[in-house]
Amino acid sequence: ALAAPAIAQTAPKVTWRVTSSFPKSLDTIFGAAETMSKYVSEMTDGNFTLQVFPAGELVPGLEAADAVSAGTVEACHTVPYYFWGKDPTYALGAAVPFGLNARMMNAWFYYGGGIDMMNEFYATQNLIAFPAGNTGVQMAGWYRKEINSVEDLKGLKMRIGGFAGKVIEKLGVVPQQIAGGDIYPSLEKGTIDATEWVGPYDDEKLGFYKVAPYYYYPGWWEGGPAIATMINLAKWAELPPAYQAALKAGCVVANTDMLASYDWKNPTALKSLVANGAQLRPLPQDVLLAAFEAANQTYAEVSAGNATFKKIKESQDAFRRDAYLNAQIAEYNYDVFMMSQQQAGKL
Amino acid sequence: ALAAPAIAQTAPKVTWRVTSSFPKSLDTIFGAAETMSKYVSEMTDGNFTLQVFPAGELVPGLEAADAVSAGTVEACHTVPYYFWGKDPTYALGAAVPFGLNARMMNAWFYYGGGIDMMNEFYATQNLIAFPAGNTGVQMAGWYRKEINSVEDLKGLKMRIGGFAGKVIEKLGVVPQQIAGGDIYPSLEKGTIDATEWVGPYDDEKLGFYKVAPYYYYPGWWEGGPAIATMINLAKWAELPPAYQAALKAGCVVANTDMLASYDWKNPTALKSLVANGAQLRPLPQDVLLAAFEAANQTYAEVSAGNATFKKIKESQDAFRRDAYLNAQIAEYNYDVFMMSQQQAGKL
Repeated sequence: ALAAPAIAQTAPKVTWRVTSSFPKSLDTIFGAAETMSKYVSEMTDGNFTLQVFPAGELVPGLEAADAVSAGTVEACHTVPYYFWGKDPTYALGAAVPFGLNARMMNAWFYYGGGIDMMNEFYATQNLIAFPAGNTGVQMAGWYRKEINSVEDLKGLKMRIGGFAGKVIEKLGVVPQQIAGGDIYPSLEKGTIDATEWVGPYDDEKLGFYKVAPYYYYPGWWEGGPAIATMINLAKWAELPPAYQAALKAGCVVANTDMLASYDWKNPTALKSLVANGAQLRPLPQDVLLAAFEAANQTYAEVSAGNATFKKIKESQDAFRRDAYLNAQIAEYNYDVFMMSQQQAGKL
Repeated sequence: ALAAPAIAQTAPKVTWRVTSSFPKSLDTIFGAAETMSKYVSEMTDGNFTLQVFPAGELVPGLEAADAVSAGTVEACHTVPYYFWGKDPTYALGAAVPFGLNARMMNAWFYYGGGIDMMNEFYATQNLIAFPAGNTGVQMAGWYRKEINSVEDLKGLKMRIGGFAGKVIEKLGVVPQQIAGGDIYPSLEKGTIDATEWVGPYDDEKLGFYKVAPYYYYPGWWEGGPAIATMINLAKWAELPPAYQAALKAGCVVANTDMLASYDWKNPTALKSLVANGAQLRPLPQDVLLAAFEAANQTYAEVSAGNATFKKIKESQDAFRRDAYLNAQIAEYNYDVFMMSQQQAGKL
C-alpha cells in the first residue's frame, strides 16, 4: 500500500470545543470568540476547527476555567477575574481596580512579559492563556439614587462581582452576585439599589435606564479588562506548531477586534441612552479616592499571603507609574484638544 | 504517473518580497513587518514566506507603493500618507491633521467600513491594503527656540513632510523635506529651526535633544498614524484563501504589536530624554486653534476637487464627532484620575 504523503501529516483534522463564559446576547464579547474561530479555520484550510458554545450549553460560564483545566473541553473564552476566588492572581490577567487601561494592558502583555508571567501561574492550573479581547474602560453602572459622596455608598446593595466586590465592601457597599437575566427585576423591585454591567452598548440592551436612571462613570474596577482564551496545557502541547501559531494569531485578532467593536458601538449607544433619559454622572472625587485607598489596602492584604500575586502586581504597578506619566504628554493633550473642539461644536 | 495528491496543492510554496519604507534603525516600525512575516511563516508551516527588506535595499522608501502597484515587489510595509502627492486620499489611510487616534482608527477600519472604503480607492491604484501598525499620538518635534504663540511659527524652517506640510504652510512655517540621516546636522548648523520625527523612543536615538532642546507636544498632524501592508492586487488574488487569511491575521498582529511596543518603550525614553535635558513644552493653544482652522481649510480645498477624499473624510469625521464625545465619559475620567494619582506620587 502507498504510504500517506508526508505533507498530509502536517495538516491533521483537529476539532476543539471552546466554551464561552458569555451568552450570545453579549454579541460583542461572544462574537470575539467566533471571530477567533473563523480566522483559525480559514488559516488552516478548515483543518483546525474551534466550536464555540455559549455559557451554559456545555459548561456554566463561571466554571469555564475548571472545565478546561480538567480537560472536559479544550479551551474557553472568558474573563480570568471570574476565577479570583480560586486564586486572586487570576484577576491580574483581566482587570483589577485602578489597573492598566486597554492599551497599557497590551503593552504589558506583549512587551512587559505579562503573557509569560501569567502563563507561569496558569501552568500551575493546568492552563495556558492568551489575551483575546478587551472592553475598554467600563461604566460604574446604574443607580436608583444619586451618589453625592462616599457616605451615600454605606449600605448600598449593588450587583457587583469578583475582586471588585471585595474592594467596594470596604466602602460600605453590600455586593450582590446576581446573574445577568435577574438584574433588571431586582433593580425594578428595589431588591438592589444599583448594578454595574459593561458599557453603553451592552447596558442599553438590558434597559437599566428605565429603573435606575443615574449612570455613573468611570468603572474604576475595570480600566481595561482583558478577556482571555484559556487552553488546556496538554491539549496545547499536542497541537502542531502551525496550529499553535494560528491560534495565537486568532487571539490577537479577537483582542483587537473586540475593542474596535466596542469603540465603534459605544458612542451611538451612549447618545441613545441619554436621549432615553439616562442621567450621566461622574463619581464624586471622594468616592474615587476612598476606592483607590481601599484597593491599595486589599492589594497589601492579598500580597502578604500570595507571592505570585505580589510579583505580578508589582510588575503591572511599575509600568502603570511610567505609562500614566507618559500618557499625560502627547496622548492626553491631543485628546483633550479634540474634546474641546467637540464641546465647541467644531468637530 | 501518480498525480500529485490534492492536499499538496493547498499548501504551495509562495515567496514574496516585502519592501519596507523604513530603515532597520526604526526597529519598532520595521520590526512590525518582521513580526507579520514570522507569524505568516509559522501559520503556513513555512510555505508562505514574506522576505522583508529595509528601505532602499530594493526600492526607496518613498517609492514603495509604486513598486507594489507595478508588481516589482508583491507587497510593502509603509505609511500610506507618503503617497498623498499622487492622491491625497492615501493620507486618510494613515493619518491627517486632527484625525482619529489609534483606537478610533481601529474602530473605523474594522467596524466603520474603513478598510473597505480605502480598498475601493486602493483598487484604482492596483493595490489592496490592511492596517499593520500604529505609533499612537506622535510628538510635535524638536525646536531650537521656544514657541510662545502662532507668531513664532512665521518663517520657521521645519523638517516636516507630506500632507501636514501642506497644512502648516498656512501658519507661515516653511516645510523642508530632509531624509532621516540628514536631520541632525541640519538642525545643529541651523539650516533648519525644527524637526518632527516620531515619539520619545525613536527620537532619543537620533539625539535631537542635544541641538534643539524644546520638545513640543502633541503632534496634531499624527493623532494615530496607521501603518499599512499594501499588496499588489493581482498577487493578492493569486493567493490561496488560507494564505490570504494568514496574511490578514499577520497584519492585525503587526497592528497591535507595534502600538504595544511603542507604548511599552516610550515612557522609559521620555524619562531618559528629560534627564538628558529635553525641555517638554505643550504647544500654545493659539497654535493648535490656528492649525485646526488651517487643516479644515485644506480639507475643504481638497474635497472640492476630489470626491473620493471627501467621502472618506466625511466618514472619519462623523465617527470622530461621536467618538470624542464618548471618550469624555469613562475613558477620560478614568485616565485623568490615574494621572492625578501619578502626579500625587501615589502610583
